[in-house]
Amino acid sequence: MILRDPVHGLVEFEGDAERVVSALIDTREVQRLRRVRQLGLTSLVFPGAEHSRFAHALGTAHVMSRLQARLRGQQSVLPSELRLDDEMERDALAAAMLHDLGHGPFSHLFEEVLPHARPHEEWTVAMLLDDATEVHRALARLDGGMPERVASLIRGDHPVKWLASAVSGVLDVDRCDYLLRDSHATGVEYGIFDLDWLLRALVFAELPLDGPAGDRWVLAIEGRKGLPPIEGFFLARHFMYGQVYHHKATRAAECSVRSIFRRVAELVRDGRAPEAVPDALRAAVLGDPLSLEDYLELDDAMLQHALGRWSRDRDPLLADLAGRLRSRVLPKTVPLPDEPGSEQGWSRAVERAGAIVRARGMRPDLFVSLDVATDVPYEEPPEDPRAGLHVMLRHQPLRRLGDISFPLQRLRNQAIVRARLCFPAEVRDEVRRAIEEVLA
Amino acid sequence: MILRDPVHGLVEFEGDAERVVSALIDTREVQRLRRVRQLGLTSLVFPGAEHSRFAHALGTAHVMSRLQARLRGQQSVLPSELRLDDEMERDALAAAMLHDLGHGPFSHLFEEVLPHARPHEEWTVAMLLDDATEVHRALARLDGGMPERVASLIRGDHPVKWLASAVSGVLDVDRCDYLLRDSHATGVEYGIFDLDWLLRALVFAELPLDGPAGDRWVLAIEGRKGLPPIEGFFLARHFMYGQVYHHKATRAAECSVRSIFRRVAELVRDGRAPEAVPDALRAAVLGDPLSLEDYLELDDAMLQHALGRWSRDRDPLLADLAGRLRSRVLPKTVPLPDEPGSEQGWSRAVERAGAIVRARGMRPDLFVSLDVATDVPYEEPPEDPRAGLHVMLRHQPLRRLGDISFPLQRLRNQAIVRARLCFPAEVRDEVRRAIEEVLA
Amino acid sequence: MILRDPVHGLVEFEGDAERVVSALIDTREVQRLRRVRQLGLTSLVFPGAEHSRFAHALGTAHVMSRLQARLRGQQSVLPSELRLDDEMERDALAAAMLHDLGHGPFSHLFEEVLPHARPHEEWTVAMLLDDATEVHRALARLDGGMPERVASLIRGDHPVKWLASAVSGVLDVDRCDYLLRDSHATGVEYGIFDLDWLLRALVFAELPLDGPAGDRWVLAIEGRKGLPPIEGFFLARHFMYGQVYHHKATRAAECSVRSIFRRVAELVRDGRAPEAVPDALRAAVLGDPLSLEDYLELDDAMLQHALGRWSRDRDPLLADLAGRLRSRVLPKTVPLPDEPGSEQGWSRAVERAGAIVRARGMRPDLFVSLDVATDVPYEEPPEDPRAGLHVMLRHQPLRRLGDISFPLQRLRNQAIVRARLCFPAEVRDEVRRAIEEVLA
Amino acid sequence: MILRDPVHGLVEFEGDAERVVSALIDTREVQRLRRVRQLGLTSLVFPGAEHSRFAHALGTAHVMSRLQARLRGQQSVLPSELRLDDEMERDALAAAMLHDLGHGPFSHLFEEVLPHARPHEEWTVAMLLDDATEVHRALARLDGGMPERVASLIRGDHPVKWLASAVSGVLDVDRCDYLLRDSHATGVEYGIFDLDWLLRALVFAELPLDGPAGDRWVLAIEGRKGLPPIEGFFLARHFMYGQVYHHKATRAAECSVRSIFRRVAELVRDGRAPEAVPDALRAAVLGDPLSLEDYLELDDAMLQHALGRWSRDRDPLLADLAGRLRSRVLPKTVPLPDEPGSEQGWSRAVERAGAIVRARGMRPDLFVSLDVATDVPYEEPPEDPRAGLHVMLRHQPLRRLGDISFPLQRLRNQAIVRARLCFPAEVRDEVRRAIEEVLA
Repeated sequence: MILRDPVHGLVEFEGDAERVVSALIDTREVQRLRRVRQLGLTSLVFPGAEHSRFAHALGTAHVMSRLQARLRGQQSVLPSELRLDDEMERDALAAAMLHDLGHGPFSHLFEEVLPHARPHEEWTVAMLLDDATEVHRALARLDGGMPERVASLIRGDHPVKWLASAVSGVLDVDRCDYLLRDSHATGVEYGIFDLDWLLRALVFAELPLDGPAGDRWVLAIEGRKGLPPIEGFFLARHFMYGQVYHHKATRAAECSVRSIFRRVAELVRDGRAPEAVPDALRAAVLGDPLSLEDYLELDDAMLQHALGRWSRDRDPLLADLAGRLRSRVLPKTVPLPDEPGSEQGWSRAVERAGAIVRARGMRPDLFVSLDVATDVPYEEPPEDPRAGLHVMLRHQPLRRLGDISFPLQRLRNQAIVRARLCFPAEVRDEVRRAIEEVLA
Repeated sequence: MILRDPVHGLVEFEGDAERVVSALIDTREVQRLRRVRQLGLTSLVFPGAEHSRFAHALGTAHVMSRLQARLRGQQSVLPSELRLDDEMERDALAAAMLHDLGHGPFSHLFEEVLPHARPHEEWTVAMLLDDATEVHRALARLDGGMPERVASLIRGDHPVKWLASAVSGVLDVDRCDYLLRDSHATGVEYGIFDLDWLLRALVFAELPLDGPAGDRWVLAIEGRKGLPPIEGFFLARHFMYGQVYHHKATRAAECSVRSIFRRVAELVRDGRAPEAVPDALRAAVLGDPLSLEDYLELDDAMLQHALGRWSRDRDPLLADLAGRLRSRVLPKTVPLPDEPGSEQGWSRAVERAGAIVRARGMRPDLFVSLDVATDVPYEEPPEDPRAGLHVMLRHQPLRRLGDISFPLQRLRNQAIVRARLCFPAEVRDEVRRAIEEVLA
Repeated sequence: MILRDPVHGLVEFEGDAERVVSALIDTREVQRLRRVRQLGLTSLVFPGAEHSRFAHALGTAHVMSRLQARLRGQQSVLPSELRLDDEMERDALAAAMLHDLGHGPFSHLFEEVLPHARPHEEWTVAMLLDDATEVHRALARLDGGMPERVASLIRGDHPVKWLASAVSGVLDVDRCDYLLRDSHATGVEYGIFDLDWLLRALVFAELPLDGPAGDRWVLAIEGRKGLPPIEGFFLARHFMYGQVYHHKATRAAECSVRSIFRRVAELVRDGRAPEAVPDALRAAVLGDPLSLEDYLELDDAMLQHALGRWSRDRDPLLADLAGRLRSRVLPKTVPLPDEPGSEQGWSRAVERAGAIVRARGMRPDLFVSLDVATDVPYEEPPEDPRAGLHVMLRHQPLRRLGDISFPLQRLRNQAIVRARLCFPAEVRDEVRRAIEEVLA
Repeated sequence: MILRDPVHGLVEFEGDAERVVSALIDTREVQRLRRVRQLGLTSLVFPGAEHSRFAHALGTAHVMSRLQARLRGQQSVLPSELRLDDEMERDALAAAMLHDLGHGPFSHLFEEVLPHARPHEEWTVAMLLDDATEVHRALARLDGGMPERVASLIRGDHPVKWLASAVSGVLDVDRCDYLLRDSHATGVEYGIFDLDWLLRALVFAELPLDGPAGDRWVLAIEGRKGLPPIEGFFLARHFMYGQVYHHKATRAAECSVRSIFRRVAELVRDGRAPEAVPDALRAAVLGDPLSLEDYLELDDAMLQHALGRWSRDRDPLLADLAGRLRSRVLPKTVPLPDEPGSEQGWSRAVERAGAIVRARGMRPDLFVSLDVATDVPYEEPPEDPRAGLHVMLRHQPLRRLGDISFPLQRLRNQAIVRARLCFPAEVRDEVRRAIEEVLA
């Protein structure tokens, strides 16, 4: 199989292990990812950000394939049971391709709002293990134990820790692909790092710890010359959070969707369900058992369709909320202080803004919200000697990345917090003035 | 207004005339373009081709803005009534941005199949002129005559022909943007040409013809040094047709959609309409009046949603057809001879394949189709001295581009024809053998 | 060995055969290429064109390495004696890297002007075969027969014709690299084609001709889908000639250098040799035997140094000529008609311009020249059925590329001719007027 | 004037003020920059790094032109005497283009080694002010006061401080161009930052300090959204130092050149001067007055020519040293500890290595050297409130960049030190062992 990809150019899956990609690509569950945008509502702000999770799934498998090509030449230092063999290569390619299978539309909003929704990671594993799915069958056809092994790579409880971390960890093939892809699609160049050198900078190293070999051996960085691509990677991540993932207008749109879901939930519970409510949403509202079948029906198309209907619903509140989003009338935002201990100020701000919208006849719980976005650009907690990345310097003991990298030393374990108040455009001036008083 | 665009980088609409872009961007009709993919089903083949007509609309306005910046320094040779002034600049920016407003989902398939559907160009004009649309109101608010003037630029009957041709002609801002954008999104590099130099290569020239000044003055190419960017433009167009727009798998998917629409139409006419048929589709089937309101509801989301329902419809034929597309089980194709006079062979091939599928219990009219894709990379018909492009050489009379460009001389007026037979994968070998006999 | 290259990105020579690159890179003859600019005087016009033949030599070896990787999967159809084995791979890598070894500074000017100069191709072979060179010794150390085999690949008389053609032919690794590299360095994007797909489009095919197998088997293009990258390649070549290699100002600078060499030759012959004349130049003027040692001393640095001296020479004519070039006072040019049969007009133009400069006291033979640049973008002479490229279509006999490619059909065997008259800026208006009369 | 540039694309100098670029470009002093490579010996390590200071001079003028276009829309807040007018624009473009005029070949090596050499900055100013130079005359022809004003912008003592800082400061047009250009040429992508957004992020701000207005007003960063491009700029600088400018092999080659200069100096002083010693070098050795005329003769070509001669000199020591460099036999290096207080260890290492080479009959002062490279990626000394950059946040006092940027907070004022020992390859193992003992 050979594909053109806007990010990686010519993408070939032609090796033996890579046949798993062809076996999976046309399954119903993988094809569903074509109908789920990678960045949810972000295209409201960056018009180019219309790419789907499907393209990302293929890109992630491609990065895994390149990583394996690099590591085949490096793994002679490993105990034999930790080395890549045909089976492990195939498992890891499948895990890379399927790691986001359970994602619903509009990213995490769905599971945040609905009390009985399961997190998307659980859905991913469920799809792998449920023998009714085409993905499960495609894997089991290759090898009966494969669904479980792939699931364990994705869950992170696989005995070969370094491989599970390459699927999902601080430096994994998922992040490698999405930073490049989101950067390419949005036109925000900060997400570009040097993948070629990054792959070449990786070697195997053994941590001086107790425990099974599978836990001790990790992917590490080779020498000081390996630092720039790794630093570039984490800085790219940091910039993309600041510029794209935490962009105020995207976050405002997400607040808007949360309010819509909340109102729909109320109406469903009150027996006044609007048209076009997806079965999965109804079940998640009512706490009914939610079948995989129903969950798989959920995609951007279905929600966009529903939003269209809701914008003309007979419930005026729902129609108002959905109509605003549909015409891109997004909430306005003001930044709130983000120092530790600001929480009290946040509450006061929410209260004041709530009072203002209430005076205009709007419900504070649906029209005012506090949005707190956080990110830790590079995690390397001091109490966990396995966490983060390590660097191999000639004739020296293994060092932690944050100890020897200038740009990362300050960013390490730093939680970047961006707090904002969201409220309707029509009360903008009033709220701004009130907030200035509150925060003065 | 300032935007990031993956194709053009930083896109600014900050001049006086460009305020029209801000006035239009959040209208309901323009926002609908976010839900219509530029390349319809192409992402089934090129996973990156998921960009919408919305991003293209902005990109086209941007190219128009750059073209105007170039021409302001060139237009002193023009009669004053043909020069860009503030009004004309604003009209042209609006026309560039709105030129595709009437496009429905899945590109032209809808209007090809349904007997009573109007072509998308008519819908575009209808949306501009109907005072119920937000686009109409936004334009009329700026200037009462604007909707009509913009429509006339798009229809091509504007008195300033050079400007109408820049909106829609052999070398227009629409093509400039979509070649670059589709190339970027698919990862097919052949669509890239040098926009910077192309814009610099343009000057005004007067054709030695009778008629009003508005007809005589055209945009022409300056000197031999202007040839490469123009040749590059038409070659890019040629390559993109061969590689992307006429790709066999995309065309096969389109055959598949046509069959689905045909089956839905039958069921509607028979009073057995499936679930989730959009009102616009029903009206187009039955010849009922189709309101603009209903047409505007049509988008990719609605059709994707309907396809999902139809794949589980109680009509087994519709369920089969829709299920195949949804799981990307596309028809197979074989190329047919494309010399002039091959039509008879095509008919025989369709007949033979029809017999084969009929023997398997499938309806030939839904499972076999002849697909003929054609394109003329560069049109410059000898009988129309105004058509095509002209080149200004120092001290020489104006020359036609096709007369002095080596690569275009052969391509000029050449209809590239690609004929293929489409049929289900399960009869692949049988059909191939039969076709070889027929064509031997 | 791993390198960063601005054109190809990360360039690795790490396979077994590729060790030959490391063995050759630090030889004196290869290092000399660092001091010879790839595009001679072109940087006077495109300031970025300052790259050396050294970077091109490495890039060419890299393209050969990629070509070999592609062909290893394709060569099972070949008779065994025509297949790549370790020896042949190594030979071909060396040939790719060394193909331009004999180039002197300022490209071909040197050999054009000096009556006794040998063409650079002969110098390349001489360096390979002379056991005093480091290159010869490095090759012979690997295998005694290697210098001769590499020379035969470069000369084109190697028994494995397809491989010799890949080193030097219509579609060879040399052109692949220089089009991309020159395009990158000049900023002229027309030289970019899709190398990834081009390599994938190549297969082996057998011509239906008599003769030894080595002559019959060729690299051909696979299917219609292979056409675009090949067409893109030849169009890129066509554009680069028009835009860069035949740019009027570069050609004018070359006229200028020719005059300088002619004047130096006169002075040398008259026993009034200026300072800093390189030994090789002196020998080439006088017809003395020219040692390889002396030839190897020639590089851009030496000629730039000499030009600096000559611009202050006691011979006022040489000082004038060299001073003009050094301060970038280039000759002016006017285009002359380029239809077949224009030669007589050219002569008249040269004569008239000559009379004008003579009247100003300048020597016509040094200050006026006719410059005729020619190129055949794609050669496929009808009388030689082996020439050009062939295309393999399923179930059809091998076709010639020019027969089935629209853009190449017209360009095939077409000699593009650009004729210009060069003369000093100070007589510009006078010459222009005279030429207009002559050509009227 | 319009040019193609590999970094900036289409570069136009077509405004009124920009005519100064055309007036300067063909002067002898600017043309000399074509013969001086921007990165000296770096192409020995990165083969693509062959670009000259000439291309950089034009690129720098282009960035200045873009900066001015941005600032014309921002400067209404400035006191009128600090605003850009035609004269100031022209002066600043000239200063940008000429800022490196005095650079000799091989970057700073020349002035480091020769006791009587003047720093290149002084030569730049000398060339501007000496009325014998073509640059001086071209400037004076436009306006008699221009040479002095341009010199004062370059020296930094111009009354409009913000403009002088834009010519030469922490964030200046010189760095903007060279980071992008060196990155492009070497293929090291870390030097790429987002110039478009960086220019848009700049505004004028007034520091709350005493002193003349010219000192108080600075270019500052607008809002948090302006941080990423600025952070990207300084991180790019940091990475380019680590990857390219301080690359161990480049530094080793520079050690090699220093030894050659030292040996030539000894021979000159001893009256045994080798052939081809440039007059400027001889004067710098002997402390003789060095004329501008002689200095202008110095370029890469002259030194390359001299190195060629010296590699065959009758002095065996010089021939050895020059021959090594010419065949790219570079010194080897070992890293030394770089903590503060390591100086003593460095001395011991030099001593031990010196003893080893002396035992082999080589002179320690010519064959062993300590190389200490340092860089401060972002300078913002606490004691100087004017230094570094400032950020304007709405409703807040001006903040220092280092106080609010996560990635720069740690890098600010941090001197990165890289210490290495350089020595001949033939004693590699011996020296490595000795150093390990010394440093243990």
